[in-house]
Amino acid sequence: MALITYHNQMDIDFGAIERIGAALKKNGISRPLICTDKGIVDTGIYDALRLALPNDIAATVFDETPGNPTEVAVDAALKLYRENDCDGVIAIGGGSSIDLGKGVALKASHDGPIINWSAVRGGRDKIGVAPPIIAIPTTAGTGSEVGGGTVIVTEDGQKVVIASPYLLPKIAICDPNLTLGLPKHLTAATGMDAMAHCIEAYLTPVINPPAAAIGLDGLERVVKYLKRAVDNGQDKDARWNMMMAASEGAMAFSKGLGAVHSMSHAVGALPELGAHHGTLNAVLLPAVLRFNADHVGNKYEKIRRAMGLEIGADISNWITEFNRTLGLPANLAQMGVTEEMIPALARHCMTDACHFTNPVQPSVEQYESLYREALNAE
Amino acid sequence: MALITYHNQMDIDFGAIERIGAALKKNGISRPLICTDKGIVDTGIYDALRLALPNDIAATVFDETPGNPTEVAVDAALKLYRENDCDGVIAIGGGSSIDLGKGVALKASHDGPIINWSAVRGGRDKIGVAPPIIAIPTTAGTGSEVGGGTVIVTEDGQKVVIASPYLLPKIAICDPNLTLGLPKHLTAATGMDAMAHCIEAYLTPVINPPAAAIGLDGLERVVKYLKRAVDNGQDKDARWNMMMAASEGAMAFSKGLGAVHSMSHAVGALPELGAHHGTLNAVLLPAVLRFNADHVGNKYEKIRRAMGLEIGADISNWITEFNRTLGLPANLAQMGVTEEMIPALARHCMTDACHFTNPVQPSVEQYESLYREALNAE
Repeated sequence: MALITYHNQMDIDFGAIERIGAALKKNGISRPLICTDKGIVDTGIYDALRLALPNDIAATVFDETPGNPTEVAVDAALKLYRENDCDGVIAIGGGSSIDLGKGVALKASHDGPIINWSAVRGGRDKIGVAPPIIAIPTTAGTGSEVGGGTVIVTEDGQKVVIASPYLLPKIAICDPNLTLGLPKHLTAATGMDAMAHCIEAYLTPVINPPAAAIGLDGLERVVKYLKRAVDNGQDKDARWNMMMAASEGAMAFSKGLGAVHSMSHAVGALPELGAHHGTLNAVLLPAVLRFNADHVGNKYEKIRRAMGLEIGADISNWITEFNRTLGLPANLAQMGVTEEMIPALARHCMTDACHFTNPVQPSVEQYESLYREALNAE
Repeated sequence: MALITYHNQMDIDFGAIERIGAALKKNGISRPLICTDKGIVDTGIYDALRLALPNDIAATVFDETPGNPTEVAVDAALKLYRENDCDGVIAIGGGSSIDLGKGVALKASHDGPIINWSAVRGGRDKIGVAPPIIAIPTTAGTGSEVGGGTVIVTEDGQKVVIASPYLLPKIAICDPNLTLGLPKHLTAATGMDAMAHCIEAYLTPVINPPAAAIGLDGLERVVKYLKRAVDNGQDKDARWNMMMAASEGAMAFSKGLGAVHSMSHAVGALPELGAHHGTLNAVLLPAVLRFNADHVGNKYEKIRRAMGLEIGADISNWITEFNRTLGLPANLAQMGVTEEMIPALARHCMTDACHFTNPVQPSVEQYESLYREALNAE
């Protein structure tokens, strides 16, 4: 059985941010809470949004989104939301700001802690109508702007995955101009996040041919345009295509994700490392793709075709080399992971929602092996 | 600018029709009007639906859908809808029944004749909420089950295209078991309709990469599975994939269609011919693809790749040969079109909504040439 649903509205265009007023009006928002972070304020992107807002909109801003959004930050933003009688969310920034915005919309309309609404506790069936969200991504990676999922770190350090169609932004305003100033290392890391989404979503056993086709199309764009965007941040064609690829990655993962993500979520839940999610995915992809190879039927042929590789080419080796040319780390050790952390990380993986849609479910021991392979890769 | 929206829910599965009760309940329908045709009644598919309906559902049936749905038939069904205080539509059958069901939902909630709501008169922006529709396709071709479009013939013989997200079925119940008994010639003709959707949608200049990717995926399935479904109607794998391809074709044509469709709509509006829409598309594809070749950038390379053809292979010739192996007519003359009809047909094309999204807009003279080419093709 395949239940296939498509998604929200996406307005992708240079200058699309100018249409924020129409988007607010259409969704009945007059007192939005703007969820963002200090970087967006410092780079002037926040000012661009404020300038585009109509005069009759009374906006409140929360600009303290952490690198990995926490429930503590969600609660701080929620306090502002309630104090200012907000009626919707504008989430502008990378995946963290958009994920935080979804957390605020959830808690503004649903009582109790975040963990109660987690995907593994059946949250998808329990979550109802939430305030409208408008998402404006400023990176091309997470695709959170076109998905109903969010990842929030609880006070006790759990990285909780929540997913509901009611948390899907009403509209994603994808303005590639907002990504022109993104530094090389963030362009590379977020772009590899998009690649991981496209590949992992395609590989899940969930039957959803439209999502699979979208994932392969996104993968083709990443291979074609990511290096260009990293080499020249002002390459508008590359920026447009990476923004599209990022959204396609998230459209594709309506089909679920896999072990790359269960493993990166576990590492990302360690606040002392401050590891970037996309970078983790980039570093983890080669090992997981080797592990999955015998459980994917002929899917690697289609992946190679989308990537423009020769028949039989080693996808993992190609990605390792690609990471190198993008200036990304070669292994988890360079990101602060140590051998001692591995047993706990492996156990964390077993409870992650993405674990269950990998082509085959790794055991704890297999997760440990995968971490070791990625720990010392060259 | 690209505005990208996805779509309704699709439940594709052998035996999916058993879930009609849940679909009605979810959409608040207790007194549905079932829109269908005599063929569906005669083949027992209607009985399968009635058996699957819960006891507390009070259904009314309209089973007089013509081959090309007319406004007269819509009005007859609407009369039943109102007399029985219906609160939603179940459209079960080929594209005609589903299109008729959309016409009923439209007129049940919008005053005035069908022509007032046509796409070329700005209907998309004027049409509001309509009663919920549940679509159950019994052919794999039109994809009307996952689209918000309908084509209705007015009393004066115009074939009117109407499109609105409010006419999108709330859920498409795609049960390939319902297509197992479809005769060879209808399997072939409806399957070629799906191919035409996938190709024409991909070729429009509208920017929508997810829809384009879905179209190419559907095209790949048609090439791989249509002949198998025609040769052996009981080939369940082929039937599932053709049903998926048909829905993918319609998801893709959220991007619009082209001259194949403007030309087939014109012929289809002639009641004296009773020409099958999918068959017309099959016969028209080769000429239109030759005409478009210089206006599609490198898109034919991707079409060839999806079809499994060699680099540089002649797509038109391949389709002509494919039509032959499927037992379809070689030309329009075999379908009753004559040289005398061509000028009026060509003029009809110029007002069709699909005309405007062809890669380049043919002139009246060019439409005449295209009709002549398809009239006598061998």
